[in-house]
Amino acid sequence: MKTYELIRGSGVESLVLTERPVPVPGPRELLLKLRAVSLNYRDLAILRGTYGDYPRPLVPVSDGVGEVVAVGAEVRRFKVGDRVIPAYVPDWVRGGPTEENSRRRLGGPLDGLLREYACIHEEAAVAAPAHLSDVEAATLPIAGVTAWHALFTAGRVGPGDTVVVQGTGGVSLFALQLARMAGARVLVTSRSPAKLERAVALGAAAGIHTGAEPEWDARVLALTEGRGADHVVDVVGGEGVGRSIGAARVGGTVTLVGFLDSATVRFDLTRALRRVVRLQAVSVGSREDLEALGRALAVRGVRPVVDRTFSFAEAHAAYAYLASGAQFGKVVLTLP
Amino acid sequence: MKTYELIRGSGVESLVLTERPVPVPGPRELLLKLRAVSLNYRDLAILRGTYGDYPRPLVPVSDGVGEVVAVGAEVRRFKVGDRVIPAYVPDWVRGGPTEENSRRRLGGPLDGLLREYACIHEEAAVAAPAHLSDVEAATLPIAGVTAWHALFTAGRVGPGDTVVVQGTGGVSLFALQLARMAGARVLVTSRSPAKLERAVALGAAAGIHTGAEPEWDARVLALTEGRGADHVVDVVGGEGVGRSIGAARVGGTVTLVGFLDSATVRFDLTRALRRVVRLQAVSVGSREDLEALGRALAVRGVRPVVDRTFSFAEAHAAYAYLASGAQFGKVVLTLP
Amino acid sequence: MKTYELIRGSGVESLVLTERPVPVPGPRELLLKLRAVSLNYRDLAILRGTYGDYPRPLVPVSDGVGEVVAVGAEVRRFKVGDRVIPAYVPDWVRGGPTEENSRRRLGGPLDGLLREYACIHEEAAVAAPAHLSDVEAATLPIAGVTAWHALFTAGRVGPGDTVVVQGTGGVSLFALQLARMAGARVLVTSRSPAKLERAVALGAAAGIHTGAEPEWDARVLALTEGRGADHVVDVVGGEGVGRSIGAARVGGTVTLVGFLDSATVRFDLTRALRRVVRLQAVSVGSREDLEALGRALAVRGVRPVVDRTFSFAEAHAAYAYLASGAQFGKVVLTLP
Amino acid sequence: MKTYELIRGSGVESLVLTERPVPVPGPRELLLKLRAVSLNYRDLAILRGTYGDYPRPLVPVSDGVGEVVAVGAEVRRFKVGDRVIPAYVPDWVRGGPTEENSRRRLGGPLDGLLREYACIHEEAAVAAPAHLSDVEAATLPIAGVTAWHALFTAGRVGPGDTVVVQGTGGVSLFALQLARMAGARVLVTSRSPAKLERAVALGAAAGIHTGAEPEWDARVLALTEGRGADHVVDVVGGEGVGRSIGAARVGGTVTLVGFLDSATVRFDLTRALRRVVRLQAVSVGSREDLEALGRALAVRGVRPVVDRTFSFAEAHAAYAYLASGAQFGKVVLTLP
Repeated sequence: MKTYELIRGSGVESLVLTERPVPVPGPRELLLKLRAVSLNYRDLAILRGTYGDYPRPLVPVSDGVGEVVAVGAEVRRFKVGDRVIPAYVPDWVRGGPTEENSRRRLGGPLDGLLREYACIHEEAAVAAPAHLSDVEAATLPIAGVTAWHALFTAGRVGPGDTVVVQGTGGVSLFALQLARMAGARVLVTSRSPAKLERAVALGAAAGIHTGAEPEWDARVLALTEGRGADHVVDVVGGEGVGRSIGAARVGGTVTLVGFLDSATVRFDLTRALRRVVRLQAVSVGSREDLEALGRALAVRGVRPVVDRTFSFAEAHAAYAYLASGAQFGKVVLTLP
Repeated sequence: MKTYELIRGSGVESLVLTERPVPVPGPRELLLKLRAVSLNYRDLAILRGTYGDYPRPLVPVSDGVGEVVAVGAEVRRFKVGDRVIPAYVPDWVRGGPTEENSRRRLGGPLDGLLREYACIHEEAAVAAPAHLSDVEAATLPIAGVTAWHALFTAGRVGPGDTVVVQGTGGVSLFALQLARMAGARVLVTSRSPAKLERAVALGAAAGIHTGAEPEWDARVLALTEGRGADHVVDVVGGEGVGRSIGAARVGGTVTLVGFLDSATVRFDLTRALRRVVRLQAVSVGSREDLEALGRALAVRGVRPVVDRTFSFAEAHAAYAYLASGAQFGKVVLTLP
Repeated sequence: MKTYELIRGSGVESLVLTERPVPVPGPRELLLKLRAVSLNYRDLAILRGTYGDYPRPLVPVSDGVGEVVAVGAEVRRFKVGDRVIPAYVPDWVRGGPTEENSRRRLGGPLDGLLREYACIHEEAAVAAPAHLSDVEAATLPIAGVTAWHALFTAGRVGPGDTVVVQGTGGVSLFALQLARMAGARVLVTSRSPAKLERAVALGAAAGIHTGAEPEWDARVLALTEGRGADHVVDVVGGEGVGRSIGAARVGGTVTLVGFLDSATVRFDLTRALRRVVRLQAVSVGSREDLEALGRALAVRGVRPVVDRTFSFAEAHAAYAYLASGAQFGKVVLTLP
Repeated sequence: MKTYELIRGSGVESLVLTERPVPVPGPRELLLKLRAVSLNYRDLAILRGTYGDYPRPLVPVSDGVGEVVAVGAEVRRFKVGDRVIPAYVPDWVRGGPTEENSRRRLGGPLDGLLREYACIHEEAAVAAPAHLSDVEAATLPIAGVTAWHALFTAGRVGPGDTVVVQGTGGVSLFALQLARMAGARVLVTSRSPAKLERAVALGAAAGIHTGAEPEWDARVLALTEGRGADHVVDVVGGEGVGRSIGAARVGGTVTLVGFLDSATVRFDLTRALRRVVRLQAVSVGSREDLEALGRALAVRGVRPVVDRTFSFAEAHAAYAYLASGAQFGKVVLTLP
């Protein structure tokens, strides 16, 4: 079968197309013929060698969807012909994360999904929601599950809450759609007026242009009659966390999910104490989160936002497009 | 001022229109000019003498909305001109219920709102949501708060959940609207095909005609691919609780909020153990629940369902109409 | 190897000693040499044919502890020589129960542990706490886990709470010891003054003799200055649940774990609504509960209460002793 | 009556003894004759002018206990002769903190308790636990409530958990005693071997000498077989928060309650994400927390640790002793 591999190096040339034998499923494994895979910044960082330092050659990419074309002898959850999504953290099935169940992840250290076929343990797979296309279904495992876990598993966002999302990356757009689906009011920050406009079209109650208003926390307070937001999904990290704390209500939550700015978080504790804030680090979620996400999208017929689709042969172009930062929504590759 | 009072007796003749002096607010009290009040079955049961046995004369009715026309010297939360809703359980401000904070309730044992003016402690009042008319705002304190507390305070209903509501009474219609607002899928049971049709128009995913399908729990299982509902709001009590348990998923919740059928609950514990079900008795909620409800309705612009409006002079007709059971939505009286 | 089997019949003669080949572990299985097993009422009910109706021949008994004497090729959690306790519900590893993970149980429908050797999936086993003897360690999976799950997973018992336990059966004694370990005050009911005395010696704050005081709920109120208990662990079922509700505080919890009296629960809903009580059915717990229980016992060096030990050859006598109801604590069989 | 006041200045000379009239209780107020008051670092920081900047003259000190010597006309919770403890944040009765209920605090901006008499709203007072002396009862409102809220309201510490407390200040010693009472295993850090010894005598499982082991997080991992602590109570702030994160288990909690080192928190987010840690800022708690704390201490007869008692006349010496940092336990002043 055709597969991409990351070999030595940290540029686009380290991603090479090669051949491997089609894998054979173990007793409780599914053999998937991949139909679509979706890129995340994690994939870019691993390509560049700035994240993870995994042994190479490594088949990259964590998110995808495929069709079951063969099953092991003891498989009971799925059958040939089912369309399934592999969980990004295969051992984390339910409950909270543990050292033991968080280690193995698709796309590094485990081989990922940028290939024609892959074997997946049946406990690490969920049925793809029927209303989603392959391209849409491929986007759920990292960005969708992270947003879900942040809002509903680690958090408790519900009707009437105010939720702030930063920018329009994958996690933020899912958080926007999911929080809105849960009856919350969503405020979005961005440096791009055009992207803010699209976020409002997606259901955000208001956009905050951080170019014009760098003190965006003050704007959140103004938009909530001084009360502050119930939940802030922070993807920026660094010194910006202080603003997220300032934008939260007394007793509110800031979820820390990323560090687009810097991994060194810094904030004023007296402010955090005054707001009695909770900072919750979130690193994706369990298979149960992925199932719950699919069920929720199906109830309302909501679809993930996909910016652009590339063919399997165009992997280099897809990585380059992701690196450009121009997209609004996910970047997906389809397989023949 | 004009006021209704319940005097001795258990028929409609025990409700009499009389005069009392306009009350004077204490230091932290608000004087409200009532604008609309809403009836609940509790009001009917108190009139009939089958509930509560409160000392008479008693000003009846628990739900209403009014305008602040005077304030005590130490009032800080509201000002003259504000439109506020009194909390039905005035001492239950926040947190869980206690023996101490649950005793005093508007409309019995405390005097209620079927009168022109009433004094309310400012901690027992919330601002009426701006998007609601007086008639709509008057319906929130009992039915709305009970549904809110059941789903979101005692329960944790969210996107993708399946919620079952029984019939189309006040609590059930609020539960339908609120669960839907939270991203859940709602199934409604009723003996009336016409009411089921209206429930579906309000957003229910499906109606279950209990006349045609008395074993409605089996139908819920069929509609959830055998999984069962995440949350059942039981307003029927009696032996029907066994069906609510049967309709719940393993690990699901049945909220017990009423006993239209019978107050003697009976069920098979082996079934409850097999489904590891939680039965949660809910008796309205706190002022904080009422505030949260108002905020949630405002975010989505959702309005309570009002069936019919009577004038203050038509109180007897309003009680009779409620007793008929013909209504779909709340029965409200407006004041001049 | 020697094994007991239940064959056709419903008396003690249906339990026969026979021979089976020593099983061979699968890739992720452990072969255990059993060292001790512990009896539960469930075992008695299955023997009598009043529970479960499982296919026979069936190796009975759910609780036990053994030594790992061989491991499958892919085992990573344990090694030969480890002393482990099999989880009673092997597929319920973490999180809440589901239809899918609750079905298979040791001792019916799956073969149980009353035999010399058994194979266990490594994900369904936990390390035995080092401070416990084999006899003590064998008692944890059903009674200990049920008490743990009731108090700490489904409930939230902590310092200063009042907990009521009924009688001195296996679950109740564990609940007594665990609630006390968590800083709670424990009240015990029993018809036997001698057993009450022993319960007090184990740490109960007071015993309530239900022979002398059949209205034991009133006594609980008296012992809590009218407030009621935070948590009642109900093992009786039937009409007694009404008393458990009456003994609970406003906002309190009654855990339903058994039906020594009757499986048909009946109670007055108006009382339940007045007390805003939560009734939680509990049917054992997950492997994670079993691990947490072991960790907790180890921190304080607490040991389960064992009444009497029989040899493997005395299985019939052990069942008969359990049936007598004379015991205070667990009945255990040891293997050579 | 005699009262201390803070006047202009930031040294010990700004604390002066003066006279004020005995206050008169409002309708729902209690007049307390103070019997003992307890000092906190907050009192020292306010004296020094490094905290709060409250209008002066200000009666200092937040913690105390007194006897009810008169009651307002509408008081229903207490009577003359009762011994009560005022809540430090009088408007925060139950539930979570809000902007509105967190503002007013005893000892700044509100007048505090370093005086012979004070009036307290009855909703802001709790009965002193009967087993505690006046000196002991005076220590609960800030340090005790903060530890309680951190462990049991914002956290969920229970049997078998490992809890880390830093140093032997007021909050840390309460956290030690309370976590132990809840069945947890407690590890204590300190730069003083003598204080570690006393902490172990109080029930800590182990002491970590941070002088000898500045990388104390590694030591916590070693003491928990690599798993990490379930809960770390951080009173140090600054860059030390990174170590608290490193000492926590995957999915664990770090409570931020103080900043003995620095109010500028800094940590590496990649580490926090790897451990999926929750950072919870805690600023004391509600009246309900104070009541629950008293109930818990009473169940086990546990007493707060008091280092030294001064007379009312020795207020300057008491402040100076607190400033020395020599104490192990609370510093208390008694009134005649």
